[in-house]
Amino acid sequence: TIITRCVIAIDHYLLSMVPAGAQVICLSDMYGTINSPNFPEPYPKESEVRWNISVPDGFQIRLYFLHFDLEPSYLCEYDYVKVEANGEELAVFCGREDSDTEQVPGEQVMSSPRSSFSVSFRSDFSNEERFLGFESHYSAVDVDECRDRNDEDLACDHFCHNYIGGYYCSCRYGYLLHSDNRTCRVECSDNVYTERSGVLSSSDFPNPYPKSSDCLYHIELEDGFLLSLEFDDTFDIEDHPDVTCPYDYVKIQAGEKVYGPFCGDRPPGKIQTESNKVQVFFHSDNSGENIGWRLSYTSSGRSPCPVPVKPLYGKLDPVQIQYSFKDHVLVSCDPGYRLIRDGEELEHFQIECQKDGSWNSFVPLCEKIESRRSRRSLPSILRNQILY
Amino acid sequence: TIITRCVIAIDHYLLSMVPAGAQVICLSDMYGTINSPNFPEPYPKESEVRWNISVPDGFQIRLYFLHFDLEPSYLCEYDYVKVEANGEELAVFCGREDSDTEQVPGEQVMSSPRSSFSVSFRSDFSNEERFLGFESHYSAVDVDECRDRNDEDLACDHFCHNYIGGYYCSCRYGYLLHSDNRTCRVECSDNVYTERSGVLSSSDFPNPYPKSSDCLYHIELEDGFLLSLEFDDTFDIEDHPDVTCPYDYVKIQAGEKVYGPFCGDRPPGKIQTESNKVQVFFHSDNSGENIGWRLSYTSSGRSPCPVPVKPLYGKLDPVQIQYSFKDHVLVSCDPGYRLIRDGEELEHFQIECQKDGSWNSFVPLCEKIESRRSRRSLPSILRNQILY
Repeated sequence: TIITRCVIAIDHYLLSMVPAGAQVICLSDMYGTINSPNFPEPYPKESEVRWNISVPDGFQIRLYFLHFDLEPSYLCEYDYVKVEANGEELAVFCGREDSDTEQVPGEQVMSSPRSSFSVSFRSDFSNEERFLGFESHYSAVDVDECRDRNDEDLACDHFCHNYIGGYYCSCRYGYLLHSDNRTCRVECSDNVYTERSGVLSSSDFPNPYPKSSDCLYHIELEDGFLLSLEFDDTFDIEDHPDVTCPYDYVKIQAGEKVYGPFCGDRPPGKIQTESNKVQVFFHSDNSGENIGWRLSYTSSGRSPCPVPVKPLYGKLDPVQIQYSFKDHVLVSCDPGYRLIRDGEELEHFQIECQKDGSWNSFVPLCEKIESRRSRRSLPSILRNQILY
Repeated sequence: TIITRCVIAIDHYLLSMVPAGAQVICLSDMYGTINSPNFPEPYPKESEVRWNISVPDGFQIRLYFLHFDLEPSYLCEYDYVKVEANGEELAVFCGREDSDTEQVPGEQVMSSPRSSFSVSFRSDFSNEERFLGFESHYSAVDVDECRDRNDEDLACDHFCHNYIGGYYCSCRYGYLLHSDNRTCRVECSDNVYTERSGVLSSSDFPNPYPKSSDCLYHIELEDGFLLSLEFDDTFDIEDHPDVTCPYDYVKIQAGEKVYGPFCGDRPPGKIQTESNKVQVFFHSDNSGENIGWRLSYTSSGRSPCPVPVKPLYGKLDPVQIQYSFKDHVLVSCDPGYRLIRDGEELEHFQIECQKDGSWNSFVPLCEKIESRRSRRSLPSILRNQILY
């Protein structure tokens, strides 16, 4: 055990507490013994010694007494042993083990709240009997941060691994440890949606969304479509009663227009955008357990096409009140009739509503069949012309 | 975490177990992570890796798996993870966490019996599906030798103090730690007895005697006495069924003569020595809990004095069958009579038995009182003549 004379006290507070003339001994070993002066011989009168014990962060100090024999006095005003940590008095002891004094340490084991402890001994100018003093032992013990750390802001998001002198965090499969070494984020910015309708949601929905993540969802349709978004009723994003969405939020960019930020437990209403491209951005901070969100998107054409007129002896499918960009209508004729277009007989013909609100073709006429010679099959028509 | 390629395996047994072509990785940090090759990507086929974990003495290793996904097979004959310590197989794992295979580690935490562990991973030439492998974590944990050490021969005699990486022993007040750093001995060789009778015993009698101690008791009377010793019936010294007192023993030296060694649970008989000086030597080794011994010694003169004759009109006190060295006899007269010695009247007179078996004086006569003039008080007589 190396005992060095204290050159620099552990903190200013401790230094200021050291009485003038007291000897200060710094102990920085991981274990050791602290005995009263001259132990096992009786201690001298008018003696003051302070031991400052300090171990590395990630450890606590345990201290206990094996032998205790000090002059008893009311409130230990004559001779005493005082245990302090962080400037706070934890215990004051005096008296003899074999008497029924309540102020002897007995088998009590003291633990430092953090990684330092101080023990002071003081004897006054007289002793009525021979008092043998004390023998105490201390050792550093590992703090199990995974078990003992109650501070939610410092706890591991997924898994905590204790080791002697510290701890580290790790994440479930598929997650990445954030640079805060604590929370688990997801990679979620390469989502591109190109279908005319779809569903997107926060990661793990309806389980709580990952922390410390920035997710970007791209919905990219052809020019001519207008996207509209509708959030599910289940909507739960960490919020604040006074400040607008300071923690987590969802924000929507549609062309020049920005919707949001949104947070809280009430979904925004249906959002009818004026754009064929939408970016949904979702930010989460390093705390909170919230369900997140899910939205369905649909699209419609910017300009409606006029309702096409059904040909005589024929029909249109589907029949709708309104037609918009990329809507198709299949034209076919009653039995005994054929579609005639550019002098060719067709069994079916499909027209498509274009971005500018016009159909790509007129609706052909149905004429009575006169010969079977020029008849062609539907598959070849589809292959050649109308599939996009 | 420093991962170095193993140059020297931990022991020869481990080395001989490493399959040809396998990669061996030595880990000597106090904590770390062990993942299958390429994790979190699927592991390659025909791969063999062994991790040898070694921490300092005084620590054990804890190992657990957070993720486990290996090709399942009967008795794990294809792909597996094997955990070994000191050449002994502790576990073999394979299979997938989400299936109900019994061979996945689950939440099991493995502890190394001592301070080293080895983990082996092996994949065969084919995988029918993609298997993601495993993620495991290890850390050194302190062995609490004070709590866990069951080996009596290594336990602390009085107090045990654990610290991270080791432990030490200390002794109750009044005892000294033996150089074995474990047992508590006593200083017990400065006992000198000079009274004509007395009692001596092993330290702490009738509580178990201290270990690792050599005690020497000196009984030293004047030349002319012969000492005799008698042990109490309570007699308990560690012995051996076949060998004579190999551990603890009491041995008595009286002049040239040696009695003992004695041990076991039956006291030696009464020992009548031929000496006025006796040394009792008591040796204890570093183990055993035995009560010890107690003996009373008495002394008598080497040569008896003749029984003195009671004077006419007088008496002797005490009256004994035998008188020996240093015995005193007080002579006094009946009422109305006085002792006359060398022309002086005395109320009492004391004679003493000498080393050579003769009295130091004859017994004076009692004569009828004729005058009160020469009467003297007892106290002044005692002061002047007969106190020794």
